[in-house]
Amino acid sequence: MANFVPGQMMEAPLLVSSLLVHAEAYHGDTEIVSRTVEGGLHRYTYAQAARRSRQLANALRRLGVQPGERVATLAWNGYRHFELYYAVSGSGAIMHTINPRLFPEQIAWIIEDAQDTVLCFDLTFAPLVEAIAAKCKTIKHWVAMTDRAHLPAHKIPNLICYEDWVEAESDQYDWPEFDEKSACTLCYTSGTTGHPKGVLYSHRSMMLHTLAGAVPDVFGLSARDSVLPVVPMFHVNAWAIPYAAPMVGAKLVFPGAALDGASLHELFETEGVTFSAGVPTVWQGLLQHLQANKLRLTTLKRCVIGGSACPPALMQTFERDYGVKIHHAWGMTEMSPLGTFNNLKIKHLKLPKDAQFAIETKQGRPPFGVQLKIVDADGRELPRDGKAFGDLLVKGHWIIDRYYRIDQSPLRDGWFPTGDVGTLDADGFLQITDRSKDVIKSGGEWISSIDLENVACAHPAVAQAAAIAAYHPKWDERPLLVVVKKPGQDVTREEILALYPGKVAKWWIPDDVVFVSELPMTATGKISKLRLREQLKDHKLPTA
Amino acid sequence: MANFVPGQMMEAPLLVSSLLVHAEAYHGDTEIVSRTVEGGLHRYTYAQAARRSRQLANALRRLGVQPGERVATLAWNGYRHFELYYAVSGSGAIMHTINPRLFPEQIAWIIEDAQDTVLCFDLTFAPLVEAIAAKCKTIKHWVAMTDRAHLPAHKIPNLICYEDWVEAESDQYDWPEFDEKSACTLCYTSGTTGHPKGVLYSHRSMMLHTLAGAVPDVFGLSARDSVLPVVPMFHVNAWAIPYAAPMVGAKLVFPGAALDGASLHELFETEGVTFSAGVPTVWQGLLQHLQANKLRLTTLKRCVIGGSACPPALMQTFERDYGVKIHHAWGMTEMSPLGTFNNLKIKHLKLPKDAQFAIETKQGRPPFGVQLKIVDADGRELPRDGKAFGDLLVKGHWIIDRYYRIDQSPLRDGWFPTGDVGTLDADGFLQITDRSKDVIKSGGEWISSIDLENVACAHPAVAQAAAIAAYHPKWDERPLLVVVKKPGQDVTREEILALYPGKVAKWWIPDDVVFVSELPMTATGKISKLRLREQLKDHKLPTA
Repeated sequence: MANFVPGQMMEAPLLVSSLLVHAEAYHGDTEIVSRTVEGGLHRYTYAQAARRSRQLANALRRLGVQPGERVATLAWNGYRHFELYYAVSGSGAIMHTINPRLFPEQIAWIIEDAQDTVLCFDLTFAPLVEAIAAKCKTIKHWVAMTDRAHLPAHKIPNLICYEDWVEAESDQYDWPEFDEKSACTLCYTSGTTGHPKGVLYSHRSMMLHTLAGAVPDVFGLSARDSVLPVVPMFHVNAWAIPYAAPMVGAKLVFPGAALDGASLHELFETEGVTFSAGVPTVWQGLLQHLQANKLRLTTLKRCVIGGSACPPALMQTFERDYGVKIHHAWGMTEMSPLGTFNNLKIKHLKLPKDAQFAIETKQGRPPFGVQLKIVDADGRELPRDGKAFGDLLVKGHWIIDRYYRIDQSPLRDGWFPTGDVGTLDADGFLQITDRSKDVIKSGGEWISSIDLENVACAHPAVAQAAAIAAYHPKWDERPLLVVVKKPGQDVTREEILALYPGKVAKWWIPDDVVFVSELPMTATGKISKLRLREQLKDHKLPTA
Repeated sequence: MANFVPGQMMEAPLLVSSLLVHAEAYHGDTEIVSRTVEGGLHRYTYAQAARRSRQLANALRRLGVQPGERVATLAWNGYRHFELYYAVSGSGAIMHTINPRLFPEQIAWIIEDAQDTVLCFDLTFAPLVEAIAAKCKTIKHWVAMTDRAHLPAHKIPNLICYEDWVEAESDQYDWPEFDEKSACTLCYTSGTTGHPKGVLYSHRSMMLHTLAGAVPDVFGLSARDSVLPVVPMFHVNAWAIPYAAPMVGAKLVFPGAALDGASLHELFETEGVTFSAGVPTVWQGLLQHLQANKLRLTTLKRCVIGGSACPPALMQTFERDYGVKIHHAWGMTEMSPLGTFNNLKIKHLKLPKDAQFAIETKQGRPPFGVQLKIVDADGRELPRDGKAFGDLLVKGHWIIDRYYRIDQSPLRDGWFPTGDVGTLDADGFLQITDRSKDVIKSGGEWISSIDLENVACAHPAVAQAAAIAAYHPKWDERPLLVVVKKPGQDVTREEILALYPGKVAKWWIPDDVVFVSELPMTATGKISKLRLREQLKDHKLPTA
């Protein structure tokens, strides 16, 4: 490499603190609006958020927090959480967002594994913190993210009140410059089996992810947007929206703990929200609220759905009835999370609406920075024909190299195996057909559980559907469909099964349908097929 | 820094070759259409361009071109130039684009300064190459960018025919991985005084520039765009469009040598162009063609104008009469070139049209990655009030650190002085009021030549206007306005001067108006005020 000639451009590390510096300088009066845990809306500007983040960085320094040290949060989407994002990572420490929906034992285990030394929490989680505090030996400082007036009676030792702590400090603070490959944030996977595993993002990976995610074919964010991330800041950094919004000068609207349809609709309308992002269940809740109350969405233009596949019927209803374009996205905690995003290409614009929609129900294509391939059981790459399906492997600038504190590499020849199964077409569009552990293996052939669920969800009386593998003496596994009906609506087993002929291969049609009142969910809001299979392990198929 | 903890994400250098790899994998059938020097249109795909670029990389290797070596071009915007962009930089050598509009002596001087070893040229420039070949001692290989059938009679020693050279090679080539801070391309400033100076971009700076420039508030490019860069590939890498288009999968349309209104209009319409970019004179030529022939633009949506300030009347006419939004941008060779881009913010959308337009005539605000400040003669930062004007300094990820082969740093305290004079407002919008050397200094106070020109250009009979400093015994300098009338139209000195009262301060009103048949231009298509002042140095002001 000795003969490579260096370019002669200015060099500065890619650090997340520079995003807030940019927003303060060029979007200083753009608002951040938060629904608070204490009640009511809080509103201030990027200039004020930047000032408070500098105060907070001073407060962390006074506490003795060193570069590389882990500061944890148990918090909703709100302005104090936003300040922590910047103050912790910006000062060189590591922001560790914890999913409060995990079991208390899991949270305590994660805190121990991460060796967190400070834990900041919203008041909602004060009882949780009280319950686990004694077990968290590494935590030296507990911080309640509230002001003195709202601090409840508690049994947490030496509890720091966030507002007192921050407002006591000077707002003079120079963000340090350090290696962009330094760790920036830490997030644990939900871990359906075994212990959760930590993913340690670097400033560089987060910045490249944020830049690549702001382009028109992905989030497409600008200073003309008002952005409401429903996806939690404790879940893969709210898909990097808290970084992308200040980068482009978009208004930020944080929903706090109120993620029900009514609360979201109110914020969408009063704050002129143009763009939102979240998992399918959130949009289902919003849709039911809109329909039940005959409401409109007057400013919302685009929504991103990720986390799990969006039922096609939901996408169509939002576009047809509310003028809101739903974009499918796919990613993972291990991918920061952006893997693919669905947006049509110029050649697709001449296709009939139906053909366009068939493309739009796929998970999308990778932005620059992510590479995808699908392989068979022997690791041979499969054709990109939209038909062959196999294990999905990924590679790129914001994809995990190894898990936190686990020496063994998760990679295969430099590629990360996602655990998803899917197809790729010639245009690079990915369609996830399953989690590899959820694939139904009937007589050695694979059946896509997601395809079976989509057919069922198109029925107007079906609220949710899950296809799982049930034991079969001849075929090893056969598909069993589990359905939750919409309130006050009815549908029979036979009506459901009648939906399939002509839509999927004959041998894919479920052997049985079971109706339940609700499906078990994971801590990140996805259907837990693991628990569902456990619940239905004794179900006997009529064909067996 | 020892205590910073490294993140655990995959690491790969940011190299321009990865853009073409991405386009081949996920936008393989998207087209690149070129108007050729030989005549007619050439069309192929990103997959074919990637294959040919690999063949070309093998051809360069066979020629013995080493990493860091300079390969020069004298070429229009076309597919072979595009292949050279990727093959040269991608293989680790340095792509040196030369402006063929410079004087032959300047070109020979630049080749000597850059120590170029290979020069590739379009047939248009064969006479130029013949004229300078003997002077270019460093060039070992001359390449005519054409096929055997079109190779003209020539006197260039050992001339290589591009098509024979490339097609003889295998298309198997693995793009090397190397340090992203390695030089990628080299471009010389036009140098109105003294010798031209080289700017040596790195792969990293170019990639960050490309990522930051693709967002909605800048070029806003996607796979639903068809992009025609009028701005030449020999001029600051065509504003990075040859990098941004494959990154997002946009169709590319190269106009070759035909930059007249009729040729551009034909390509816009036949290739469904949605986005274009160039200097104001190009759009003036297009507008005259559209008006004279009563033509429409049916697919074009957005144009970027940079290089020099766009007359407001031109912007208004394109939007009102043709539905094409013109965005002002500002940058420099030393800035890769992106400095600012004009797009309104959410709060501006409620303003009346006139107030919006007043913002849109400014040069715009910086994207993430660029910082701006204006300072007075003593280097003190001036307020961002949209009124105070001073020397503009810039800093950022794709801004020059030092010129090629010049040891002395051009920076002031880490900031690059642009040589432009302007105002900044509270929203970060820059308004260039002058080049610092073009500012008219009347009695110690500064007068903006651009403001004076904009007033004159609003008159329907004025084709072009330039305000320059004329000598005045009392005030040192006073403004003199030089006007080119539109063909067949007339306007008097008095009519021009009557435009000013109420639009500019009384003491800014030009002391005199001179009519000329054409203005002297620089090699990059800007009005040469240096030569204009020289031409009019004996002009006596009526007030003097």
